Amino acid sequence: MDKTFSSSNEAKPIRCKAAICRNAGEALVIEDIYVDPPQAYEVRIKILCTSLCHTDLSFWKMDFGPLSRFPRILGHEAVGVVESIGENVDGFKQGDVILPVFLPFCGDCRDCKSSKTNWCERYADDFVSNTRRYGMSSRFKDSSGEVIHHFFFVSSFSEYTVVDIAHLVKISPEIPVDKAALLSCGVSTGIGGAWKVANVEEGSTVAVFGLGAVGLAVAEGARLRRAAKIIGIDTNPDKFELGKKFGLTDFVNPTLCGEKKISEVIKEMTGGGVDYSFECVGVASLLTEAFISTRTGSGKTVMLGMEKHAAPISLGSFDLLSGRSICGSLFGGLKAKLDIPILLDHYLKKEINLDSFITHELKFQEINKAFDLLKEGKSLRCILWMDK
Amino acid sequence: MDKTFSSSNEAKPIRCKAAICRNAGEALVIEDIYVDPPQAYEVRIKILCTSLCHTDLSFWKMDFGPLSRFPRILGHEAVGVVESIGENVDGFKQGDVILPVFLPFCGDCRDCKSSKTNWCERYADDFVSNTRRYGMSSRFKDSSGEVIHHFFFVSSFSEYTVVDIAHLVKISPEIPVDKAALLSCGVSTGIGGAWKVANVEEGSTVAVFGLGAVGLAVAEGARLRRAAKIIGIDTNPDKFELGKKFGLTDFVNPTLCGEKKISEVIKEMTGGGVDYSFECVGVASLLTEAFISTRTGSGKTVMLGMEKHAAPISLGSFDLLSGRSICGSLFGGLKAKLDIPILLDHYLKKEINLDSFITHELKFQEINKAFDLLKEGKSLRCILWMDK
Ligand SMILES: [Zn+2]
Ligand SMILES: [Zn+2]
Ligand SMILES: [Zn+2]
Ligand SMILES: [Zn+2]
Repeated sequence: MDKTFSSSNEAKPIRCKAAICRNAGEALVIEDIYVDPPQAYEVRIKILCTSLCHTDLSFWKMDFGPLSRFPRILGHEAVGVVESIGENVDGFKQGDVILPVFLPFCGDCRDCKSSKTNWCERYADDFVSNTRRYGMSSRFKDSSGEVIHHFFFVSSFSEYTVVDIAHLVKISPEIPVDKAALLSCGVSTGIGGAWKVANVEEGSTVAVFGLGAVGLAVAEGARLRRAAKIIGIDTNPDKFELGKKFGLTDFVNPTLCGEKKISEVIKEMTGGGVDYSFECVGVASLLTEAFISTRTGSGKTVMLGMEKHAAPISLGSFDLLSGRSICGSLFGGLKAKLDIPILLDHYLKKEINLDSFITHELKFQEINKAFDLLKEGKSLRCILWMDK
Repeated sequence: MDKTFSSSNEAKPIRCKAAICRNAGEALVIEDIYVDPPQAYEVRIKILCTSLCHTDLSFWKMDFGPLSRFPRILGHEAVGVVESIGENVDGFKQGDVILPVFLPFCGDCRDCKSSKTNWCERYADDFVSNTRRYGMSSRFKDSSGEVIHHFFFVSSFSEYTVVDIAHLVKISPEIPVDKAALLSCGVSTGIGGAWKVANVEEGSTVAVFGLGAVGLAVAEGARLRRAAKIIGIDTNPDKFELGKKFGLTDFVNPTLCGEKKISEVIKEMTGGGVDYSFECVGVASLLTEAFISTRTGSGKTVMLGMEKHAAPISLGSFDLLSGRSICGSLFGGLKAKLDIPILLDHYLKKEINLDSFITHELKFQEINKAFDLLKEGKSLRCILWMDK
């Protein structure tokens, strides 16, 4: 489709349904909203399906601080189809199937050109704006004309949304959209953490703290790298059986460790500590345990969970000096535009088990039920279908 | 020389001079001691020259804890000649020039065979024993028969010492022994930190906290890797001129930073932070500053200084999560037996500037003067000659 034609012809607001969070912690309300046309470097997207990640829960509950903002449209794991494009949009056209990712990739800056990071020097430090290049400018209004805020530059809990092209990955239409949506955040974070950040190798030992979707995706990544032992740590005993689908070989329930620290149990299980540990919960004290659970001299710890209270991380000085390392990572160190196509390719070759992450499917209108399932630890991922 | 002959013929104690530390913080006393013959896997060494490292100072002052022990012969940077060998000593014979290193290398364990660490699973966790394979058994007695303790398996402040072969590197006799002795600890730690642990690359930016021998060796390593900017941080303003010999391009004096934190100054100097930072002092709060001085998304911090009070390290959780990493290292990540010959080769090719580390030379008998020079920050390395 011709670009000029597309942007001029369709440059009017769309009225559609969205799930609005009016106040912190309150049930979302499905309302009619108006979605403005995309501006330069933006694409308006018809969402096909979306899912719910723990970060949505965190921001849904967040009632203070610079990142708390209401009314808001949450949601950042999704797949959609391009409905219209703004000016200066290269590489996307109406009808393209796309996957949005909260972490931007400008492709031009020093960081985007470097293989050492997935941070984008130009954009990635902004978690506050509504839209990527327009600051607090919003593309959403409710039926009374009130501005509705975006979330993480995606806002997928809406039939239509507007996303900057720095956040978009074009994907092949042959891929089942619900499986692809999983790669929008949590599952990519886990697999990338194992593959790209830790670079887990054959025969190694791995400990995964927290067996939500991110933690189980770490296990899946470690399984595919043929790790010898993959230990899951979770207070929910049901997670062991579930985790076996993703390669978990061993399980530690912290509530059953008695006097022993989790790290002591892991050291006993592995003759001195694991090669790699991953914190996927977001609790500083667990990160300290994950760190000390690794092997002296070479143990590597990867922080994937966002600390819930922004508490500092404490590490024993000699534990560090003797050769351990720790690194953090957003989105598993992946550059979305470059690495998601690779992950999808592994899926199409039936290597990565994505299917088992989908434990529930609901209609978009039932979104509050999806929140309950995740809050109660009953779901890994619940796919919300917009058109069903 | 025939091994059996050597060990039988010379299997008697040697009477010689040593500098004994009788009590924490007291001046060393040059006394006559008896040095037993080497046992299995051990070599008795005639020390040619030795130097003094901050770790000697730390243990000289240490009046409590499991690592504090007196009377003791300190010293762990040296070069010597093999005087006699014990049973089961392969690869060393009388007359060999050797360099001892506090960090052992058994060569057989999983860690020694791995390229990922210089920790030795079999030996490296023991910092308490006198002798490597014989626990608290000592090879030193004073003239009254009292046992004198070893230090870090080297104890080079003596005309003769006994060292386990796991700690010995054979070096070429053509190398000036005073320059070689520098590689026994501090200088190798710094160069290895830059080369092996951080892997500093051409064009990158580097911050070095603390400009003693280790810090300046980091600068030297970064210079040889063609780093674009090498910032030294030290409260002693004289260190800038000195540091230029080792590639320092910029200098920050923390006492002149006013309201600003060191990390803020470094971020301003580098447009957002350095690629690599190194803590070479051993102060937890400085490590936190070093960490936050690095570039978001890719900054790497290397801990080389041993925290003086074993205080925990505190890191900002989002600073870590956004992609920074931190690792600790003993002996700059080098495997002494494999890597010191490589460093010496660089020296012989006139690439590494070792000469400028030697700021003073004294007779062994003047060892307390060498302590004063190091305590007062006047020396980088003072070579103590045993026979002059
Ligand atoms: Zn960029
Ligand atoms: Zn997420
Ligand atoms: Zn070993
Ligand atoms: Zn030393």
